Amino acid sequence: MATTASVDSDFIHRLAREARKAALRLAVATTAERNAVLEVLAGLLASESSSILEANHRDLEAGRSAGLSEPLLERLTLTPERLHRIGAGVKEVAALPDPLGAELHSHTRPDGLEIRKVRVPIGVIAIIYESRPNVTIDCAALCLKAGNAAILRGGKEAFHTNTALAALVSKALAENNLPETAAQLVPTTDREALHHLLKLDDLIDCVIPRGGEGLIRMVAETSTIPVIKHYKGICCLYLDHAADPEMAEAIVVNAKTQRPSVCNAAEQLLVHRGAAAALLPRIGRALATAGVELRADEEAAAILTQAGVPCRPAAPDDFRTEFLDLVLAVRLVGSLTEGIQAINTDGSHHSDAIVTSDEAAARTFLAGVDSAAVYWNASTRFTDGYEFGMGAEIGISTDKLHARGPMGLPELCSYKYHVLGHGQIRT
Amino acid sequence: MATTASVDSDFIHRLAREARKAALRLAVATTAERNAVLEVLAGLLASESSSILEANHRDLEAGRSAGLSEPLLERLTLTPERLHRIGAGVKEVAALPDPLGAELHSHTRPDGLEIRKVRVPIGVIAIIYESRPNVTIDCAALCLKAGNAAILRGGKEAFHTNTALAALVSKALAENNLPETAAQLVPTTDREALHHLLKLDDLIDCVIPRGGEGLIRMVAETSTIPVIKHYKGICCLYLDHAADPEMAEAIVVNAKTQRPSVCNAAEQLLVHRGAAAALLPRIGRALATAGVELRADEEAAAILTQAGVPCRPAAPDDFRTEFLDLVLAVRLVGSLTEGIQAINTDGSHHSDAIVTSDEAAARTFLAGVDSAAVYWNASTRFTDGYEFGMGAEIGISTDKLHARGPMGLPELCSYKYHVLGHGQIRT
Repeated sequence: MATTASVDSDFIHRLAREARKAALRLAVATTAERNAVLEVLAGLLASESSSILEANHRDLEAGRSAGLSEPLLERLTLTPERLHRIGAGVKEVAALPDPLGAELHSHTRPDGLEIRKVRVPIGVIAIIYESRPNVTIDCAALCLKAGNAAILRGGKEAFHTNTALAALVSKALAENNLPETAAQLVPTTDREALHHLLKLDDLIDCVIPRGGEGLIRMVAETSTIPVIKHYKGICCLYLDHAADPEMAEAIVVNAKTQRPSVCNAAEQLLVHRGAAAALLPRIGRALATAGVELRADEEAAAILTQAGVPCRPAAPDDFRTEFLDLVLAVRLVGSLTEGIQAINTDGSHHSDAIVTSDEAAARTFLAGVDSAAVYWNASTRFTDGYEFGMGAEIGISTDKLHARGPMGLPELCSYKYHVLGHGQIRT
Repeated sequence: MATTASVDSDFIHRLAREARKAALRLAVATTAERNAVLEVLAGLLASESSSILEANHRDLEAGRSAGLSEPLLERLTLTPERLHRIGAGVKEVAALPDPLGAELHSHTRPDGLEIRKVRVPIGVIAIIYESRPNVTIDCAALCLKAGNAAILRGGKEAFHTNTALAALVSKALAENNLPETAAQLVPTTDREALHHLLKLDDLIDCVIPRGGEGLIRMVAETSTIPVIKHYKGICCLYLDHAADPEMAEAIVVNAKTQRPSVCNAAEQLLVHRGAAAALLPRIGRALATAGVELRADEEAAAILTQAGVPCRPAAPDDFRTEFLDLVLAVRLVGSLTEGIQAINTDGSHHSDAIVTSDEAAARTFLAGVDSAAVYWNASTRFTDGYEFGMGAEIGISTDKLHARGPMGLPELCSYKYHVLGHGQIRT
């Protein structure tokens, strides 16, 4: 629960200036140089594991004294096995293709001027996160791979662990003759220092908050630096009148129960009124068997009850709630249009699915639902960097600017234009 | 100078809700539907020109009574010819290719799941601008072409003109059976209403301020909605030791004098110390002949003075100033590295150029200068949507997220993932 008392706004400003300087150096580092940092880091995570675990032990002791809840202590805990997995993740990032330098577009103007749009790092990225210490390494590795300097501001519960982990990143940078300030942990968890950091828009290019909605909202409201947000996932499943019952059951059960605590799990089931009598009893039964509590609107409840499936009446808020638990809100809608409207109004623009064998209905749904990922006949659980083939992700954006949905390495990049001439002037 | 007294925060909220509803409709409008709106709008700008000019006359009268400066009155003025040009611009936007629907990427996972990244509108875009009434039409046309609903909040000086122009956009929408609320002028220029608008992050997806630095900073500081900023252009020219003197002269004179009042005009000249004696006298003379005031550091001043070229001593601030006038700051640097560092520190990350026949130096400059557009042997004046082949631009972003440099139609779009399966679930 430590913070360093000597950290003032000048210190934060200096830290950000160092990050900016380091970013300019990193921007011209080669692929091999950046990968070497990650390889060395993975090695250090193994060779220095005891000091990391010791620092983690201090955080856990402090956390227990402070009366942290068991789930919070669990999130905070590093084990040799978890540390090993973190190191393996760093190696995976090293093995990913370099996103930098790619020519995204190029053309030659009639006067011979060549305009080339090339991918470059964003620059300085601040990651604001809570109690999971693995974020320190995961985010630093992704930022460095994409040529960005990282400013890491973790939660106070993990302060000692984060300090030890960040020191390894700096060591891996220094061993490769790159500025160790290319990854810096803010050495305080003081709120005021964070507020100061979030105003340094001339030095920091992007802020990514990773944590609960309260943290994200605070960052979005305070920051004058562009923020990439990933709010909650109220994912909806819509069963069309032409849904195949077996497929519908498999998708609903998977999307709700395979891992209920994550943002791409389903929270809401909408069923076309004309198909409810055929679909709801079997799907309700399967869900009940899987331990899911159903909160149903009046019409859905009537069908479920008649079929002997337990349910309770839904409150209006249940249709705007991210349960992250074995709970599902269920309602009937009169049409595809009504279903799309309900999802756009009450969902969270994250991931939503239609189950139907009617292609026209599917196309209307894909076009009409305003979400990062819209599914036809598949589970929403696939919204994920690995599943989308990106290799690793830094988060899942619910914003529409810059990045939407899973954010991999290319989404941690910007671009610039190289304009090559032979003396062209504008007339 | 009118504002409507009855506008309160509920009104603003309702306006944004209407915009969001309209955006969902626009997102599924066809190319032909969106283009038809623009064609009708161009026709209305011609057929209803007298009522627009009359509204403009009211603004100009009020402006004169309020003692507005002549340049401000000039910016505010519409003439039949200017109105004609605005209409021609709308037709040009209609003729541009549709940015929507393009498949940006697609791949099939081993289990047969198809993941398609497709370009879609951003949604609701708020444009906050100052006194030029053409922005109302230019921005509405670009937003609608890209399927976005626009909320337009112009300056108080142009209130009547903007009201009349926005009414034409709504009329063009209604005539094509699209919601007239897809483009709405905020019917007040009250600061409090603007502040309220900038907090509606659940209804508005993006804010683009168009105007001076004060306006942009206020919007960035107030808004909880993502903002795309285009700050000033302190464009720098670096003359390498291997610069061709004739080419260097042509580029410097063009970048400084061809249109000094715009953001891609050069404000600063850096000359390699080893080339200064050969380059500065002839370039200084050419600039002086073109009426440019040179503000030189001590070394540059010595060379210029000896060559009989008039100059005055530069103040330190001159190297961080956007003059937007026939003034150029001049200094010598000891190396390419020093030049790049000076540009990254004192420039504005907009557009910067190197003149050199040394390809290695050029590559180092292109990679090392952290700006939206980096030029080799060409004038910075080409940073512009038309010159970059985009057709039309809504501004030139100095941000690094989402869009950097000129923003055309694709930059007014987001993307989403269509995920097509045949029953895939996650295991």
